[in-house]
Amino acid sequence: MTTLRGNCLMGQSGGPTAVINASICGVIQEAMKHSEIQEIYGAQHGILGVLQEDLIDLRREDAEEIELLKCTPAAALGSIRHKLPDPDQDASEYERIFQVFEAHNIRYFFYAGGNDSMDTINKICAYAEQVGYDLRAVGIPKTVDNDLAGIDHCPGYGSVAKHIAAITLGVGLDMQSVHLTDPVVIMEVMGRNAGWMTASSALARSFEGDAPNLIYVPEAPWNRDRFLDDVRRSQGKHGWCFIAVSVGTKDESGGYLATQKGEYAKDAFGHVQLGGAGPFLEDLVRGELGLKTRLIRMGPAERIAMHFASLTDRDEAYGLGAFAVQSGINGITAKMVSLERKTNEPYQCELTLSDLEIVANEEKLIPREWLNEAGNDVTQDFVAYARPLIEGEVPTPIENGLPRYARLREVRVEQRLLAWPK
Amino acid sequence: MTTLRGNCLMGQSGGPTAVINASICGVIQEAMKHSEIQEIYGAQHGILGVLQEDLIDLRREDAEEIELLKCTPAAALGSIRHKLPDPDQDASEYERIFQVFEAHNIRYFFYAGGNDSMDTINKICAYAEQVGYDLRAVGIPKTVDNDLAGIDHCPGYGSVAKHIAAITLGVGLDMQSVHLTDPVVIMEVMGRNAGWMTASSALARSFEGDAPNLIYVPEAPWNRDRFLDDVRRSQGKHGWCFIAVSVGTKDESGGYLATQKGEYAKDAFGHVQLGGAGPFLEDLVRGELGLKTRLIRMGPAERIAMHFASLTDRDEAYGLGAFAVQSGINGITAKMVSLERKTNEPYQCELTLSDLEIVANEEKLIPREWLNEAGNDVTQDFVAYARPLIEGEVPTPIENGLPRYARLREVRVEQRLLAWPK
Repeated sequence: MTTLRGNCLMGQSGGPTAVINASICGVIQEAMKHSEIQEIYGAQHGILGVLQEDLIDLRREDAEEIELLKCTPAAALGSIRHKLPDPDQDASEYERIFQVFEAHNIRYFFYAGGNDSMDTINKICAYAEQVGYDLRAVGIPKTVDNDLAGIDHCPGYGSVAKHIAAITLGVGLDMQSVHLTDPVVIMEVMGRNAGWMTASSALARSFEGDAPNLIYVPEAPWNRDRFLDDVRRSQGKHGWCFIAVSVGTKDESGGYLATQKGEYAKDAFGHVQLGGAGPFLEDLVRGELGLKTRLIRMGPAERIAMHFASLTDRDEAYGLGAFAVQSGINGITAKMVSLERKTNEPYQCELTLSDLEIVANEEKLIPREWLNEAGNDVTQDFVAYARPLIEGEVPTPIENGLPRYARLREVRVEQRLLAWPK
Repeated sequence: MTTLRGNCLMGQSGGPTAVINASICGVIQEAMKHSEIQEIYGAQHGILGVLQEDLIDLRREDAEEIELLKCTPAAALGSIRHKLPDPDQDASEYERIFQVFEAHNIRYFFYAGGNDSMDTINKICAYAEQVGYDLRAVGIPKTVDNDLAGIDHCPGYGSVAKHIAAITLGVGLDMQSVHLTDPVVIMEVMGRNAGWMTASSALARSFEGDAPNLIYVPEAPWNRDRFLDDVRRSQGKHGWCFIAVSVGTKDESGGYLATQKGEYAKDAFGHVQLGGAGPFLEDLVRGELGLKTRLIRMGPAERIAMHFASLTDRDEAYGLGAFAVQSGINGITAKMVSLERKTNEPYQCELTLSDLEIVANEEKLIPREWLNEAGNDVTQDFVAYARPLIEGEVPTPIENGLPRYARLREVRVEQRLLAWPK
């Protein structure tokens, strides 16, 4: 392996998580340990910041603020959803990216994101090889959805799972308190095709009858009559019913519940943006069963709860960031750093590397056998898988009664190219 | 003052808070110190439990579980919304209540709730005097709405304010991260006539441009054109706009935004149940400004966050419960225990007593001068008032990665009367 000297650039992409900044902190603090890496830059808003040569100098930040990134939610460098074109159709963005890399002698590129981001790295690496640019690019997984292939679980998932479970636990008690007047709670949870987030509500249960009483995820087709039966039975038995439903839950014909009432739009990747599964079920329960319902739609509030994040998740996110740098230094490129579970009790995960193609093109759904036959709950296998991921609490400095999150100075790196697009 | 010996009964009413159980814990632990009080009972689901003679024996609970009530959200005894009839129209419920009191020698009655609950105590006290039943009944304030008169602020408010501010802080960072694609966030917050909860989002701000950028509360009439201007201006200036809106916000003709799209129903007290202010604003922003929005409706999840509750709030809730018992022992009846702020820096509140009539019949709204002229924000006076209420974090025992909340055994007190209603 030849030693590669140069500057390092990192970026964040896709929807933020509670711990994606912890990964960035891991990259920065590890990069500072290696003499091969001179400047340490961050791209503002991911690949868009590369295209626009909008870079900040992370060596100019206070060490304390960098350290605070370990317990700061959202994406401190700014995130973006931007799909690189097929290079055979249009190479202009690739040409520009490598002009920027060359202008700033970027030799190490670390990109934290989901499957679309791994696709971005994959394309950049292929282009680098094509044009003979010496680059080490490593992907760092993140996504609250937990739907990445090639990894045991995604950093970001443990914290959102812990938050959803804590909310379910509290609202479950609240519902039991007031069930004589308000017997049904519907909690709509994010998740397009994968129900991992919604399923994590199950971690709140200790006893029979505890919330959630019913769980509907995209992996199990939903049926109107069965649903109404399920709610009627739960309410009859316990006096209440807590329903957790993914926004992406579909009926047996494959149609989203969300589109039967609610928003319908597509994002830059052509993914359907969902919204109305909760209100749709609410209407059904009110209209068909005459029960009073309360609706919870946390939306983006699900994924930002550093005030009750998982220490396991945070430490893994940080560790993967540091491991990405070590991998790059050791000659690795065009890979994603990954986690492989060795044992469940005690919980142990090993740092490994995954192929970008697998991550970019596959989607990890809840295995059907981790859902019950009726398709309205998870099994113990899911609970055994998810439980260790929510262990531990992140110590967060508090100021004026609220978490004190990192505040970057964002010192811009001097631009050397003409503005883009021309 | 004559010494009154007998049993003690307590209950909870209305919507739960994160700390209403802390008040109950204060009542129980204080009651145990006084020899005047023999049995210590809890009414299941408030006044309904009294009517149905559904009482539990709190001396049969484990001391550790009672201690855990200090950090358990929701209403451990069960809550209810039940309006006592005008005794001149229908005395049957009063007759029944006093049969139950007499059958169990209830001489001390402590009821935690909002203005409707204080009305309940007031009516019970008036009836006790009328029939010559020796009773000491004291109200303990609670409400997330913070709309009770005769008290500086309500127990329950500080914790919900802290939770809403923490969510605003996190989602604000998230929004700044992704504002290039999703520039507008609308957070709908509970609150029928009073905007205190929505206003608490302002505590999240540290710098110009921080979330929330706009705050709409029921106390300031909302105007469609001004609103669209506000959003356009904020988005133009910062690139994003975080809007906090009360479900009970009204337009200049006094009509609820919620009813222009959304649910419309009434509860047992004839209060309008609101829901659609957020979706209504979302439609406007999308339709008129063409901006992509994300909606947050925490609903009941707002008020259960013991995982990030205010220690100040919790300690006051506990202290008021204990003070209610001390007051009863000292001969006080037909009063609500209350808080009077002495100084703001350092923050100091004194325990006092308030008249039930005032609390039952008045509503404390945000003073108009604590809102800015444009009616889209709070002033520093509000921040100075609310800031001390969110100070401190409640140490919560954790089990399997989640808060370990109290689990009562709920040993039923033997019934001595025929079932009710006959």
